[in-house]
Amino acid sequence: MSKSSEIVKISNYARLSINPLRKLKFEQNIRLNPEKQVITLQLGDPSIFGNFPPAREMIEALKKSVELDKYPYNPSEGRPDACAAVADYSKHHGNISANDVILTSGCGHAVEMCILTVVSAGENILIPRPCYNYKTWSDGMNIESRHYNLDPNNNWNVDLQHMESLIDDKTKAILVNNPGNPCGNVFSREHLLEIISVADTHNLPIISDEIYEFFAFPDVQYCSISSLSINVPVLTCSGLSKRFMTPGMRLGWILISDRNNRLAEVREGLLNVTGRILGPNSAVQRALPEILRKTPDSFFADNISRISVSCS
Amino acid sequence: MSKSSEIVKISNYARLSINPLRKLKFEQNIRLNPEKQVITLQLGDPSIFGNFPPAREMIEALKKSVELDKYPYNPSEGRPDACAAVADYSKHHGNISANDVILTSGCGHAVEMCILTVVSAGENILIPRPCYNYKTWSDGMNIESRHYNLDPNNNWNVDLQHMESLIDDKTKAILVNNPGNPCGNVFSREHLLEIISVADTHNLPIISDEIYEFFAFPDVQYCSISSLSINVPVLTCSGLSKRFMTPGMRLGWILISDRNNRLAEVREGLLNVTGRILGPNSAVQRALPEILRKTPDSFFADNISRISVSCS
Repeated sequence: MSKSSEIVKISNYARLSINPLRKLKFEQNIRLNPEKQVITLQLGDPSIFGNFPPAREMIEALKKSVELDKYPYNPSEGRPDACAAVADYSKHHGNISANDVILTSGCGHAVEMCILTVVSAGENILIPRPCYNYKTWSDGMNIESRHYNLDPNNNWNVDLQHMESLIDDKTKAILVNNPGNPCGNVFSREHLLEIISVADTHNLPIISDEIYEFFAFPDVQYCSISSLSINVPVLTCSGLSKRFMTPGMRLGWILISDRNNRLAEVREGLLNVTGRILGPNSAVQRALPEILRKTPDSFFADNISRISVSCS
Repeated sequence: MSKSSEIVKISNYARLSINPLRKLKFEQNIRLNPEKQVITLQLGDPSIFGNFPPAREMIEALKKSVELDKYPYNPSEGRPDACAAVADYSKHHGNISANDVILTSGCGHAVEMCILTVVSAGENILIPRPCYNYKTWSDGMNIESRHYNLDPNNNWNVDLQHMESLIDDKTKAILVNNPGNPCGNVFSREHLLEIISVADTHNLPIISDEIYEFFAFPDVQYCSISSLSINVPVLTCSGLSKRFMTPGMRLGWILISDRNNRLAEVREGLLNVTGRILGPNSAVQRALPEILRKTPDSFFADNISRISVSCS
């Protein structure tokens, strides 16, 4: 083989950015029954079957925005009015202002930005087991993911002793997912305080994936971890995917909760990272204030009620 | 200072992901004349002043797509019909099929994916000088960017001897921008063949940033580098930002040109990387076939003609 016809090699970043949920469909070895239609259950996509459409208010807001026929670059951290609307929507996280909000291309992008900003190659981050595919973002960066156990015999709560045993001087953050993905638990206020206490003892920030925020049945109280923390800085990730039934919107956000002024560098680092791919679509950003303000409570309550019936 | 009130440190990735075009507005030291309105010239944004609106056909396609009120996750490399439409639009690149197309969150995201897939930490890539901010994507990954000179005394053509002198065994790709950003040159077919020859001699793939494809005045012929290459694999990056006057659409793409079957690993690596943030907005992807097929030639011709008048 002549030198010039060699195969082009790839980086570890590309080799190890494996998203197992997305990889499934590429597998050629799965034998499907040709007489049955495949139901894809590996993605948390409420929009597939048509029984959970987005709110009419959202579609109207988007139509108005599209009609404006302007698609300028946005500030890479997001339009100021869109960030302000997210801050307003996120009052359950405590005192969040527009300056504490960064818009992202979906919640996954938000989590990626947070992990890559606070953890470096050769360091590690604690993530739950079982969990969503957080390793997609860390493995290719040579960031080690250490799994702390969720305990199926204790309502899928964190095994705090196990979590603490994993921490060493290379640990740079604890990632928490609440309400629970994939097992459906909602951590109590008391349990969240226990997790905060571990983070505080070891001087670690928390990255909280709350894309399922408010997804709690009526008898359970969802509480944001950021609202409970005094000293521990929390980066909360959320977006429109689940509660608004629009995972393909690719509109997510980061909330920076930093009551003790420990995130000055992180804030600047996150702003730097926004310069890499420049955030979500202009029309969606422009519609966001109306989407967040006009979607009626009844839309969310009805969805939760219907999911609750299916689950019982 | 107690341990638990320490500042949280950030990664080199976050520290070095500097986008200087985006950073400008954060500078506090620029003294502005309060009596004048600031005209932002640092971004290539055709939509700012309202004199280059997008085509009516695009807005109508988007409105129809939004009205369908479905925002599912897309395949992470893009909807098949959208990829097929891009392949059809990209015939000037040679034989491109839907499988050779990957949709991205803007052309910048496409360039990032290509660089990070073929170049690893400790290796280097050749990029032009002057150039767009490609270092935003490489610096934070510990990838070295080596600038080859564009020669102002030779129509801003590549100084081929200088380019070749920079190549060593750690060089993994040559990045070319054509038509020219920022100096407005359009490489001739002969010059593109010279660049391909350098890449071929040194067994390097080419990453071609062609976001300004077709931006050539009537007396100049734009030619895609991928259409001229036999042995050298080319990853072409483009999208809707410039020609369609919608940089905020965040819809870009990668075309994989690989006539000599050297990109099997790169193709898989790029598909892996798409799993990180899952591509552009569903409604935009769904509208893409209509946008690409229905936008009339007169829209592009009129824009080029008006820009031509402004420049002469």
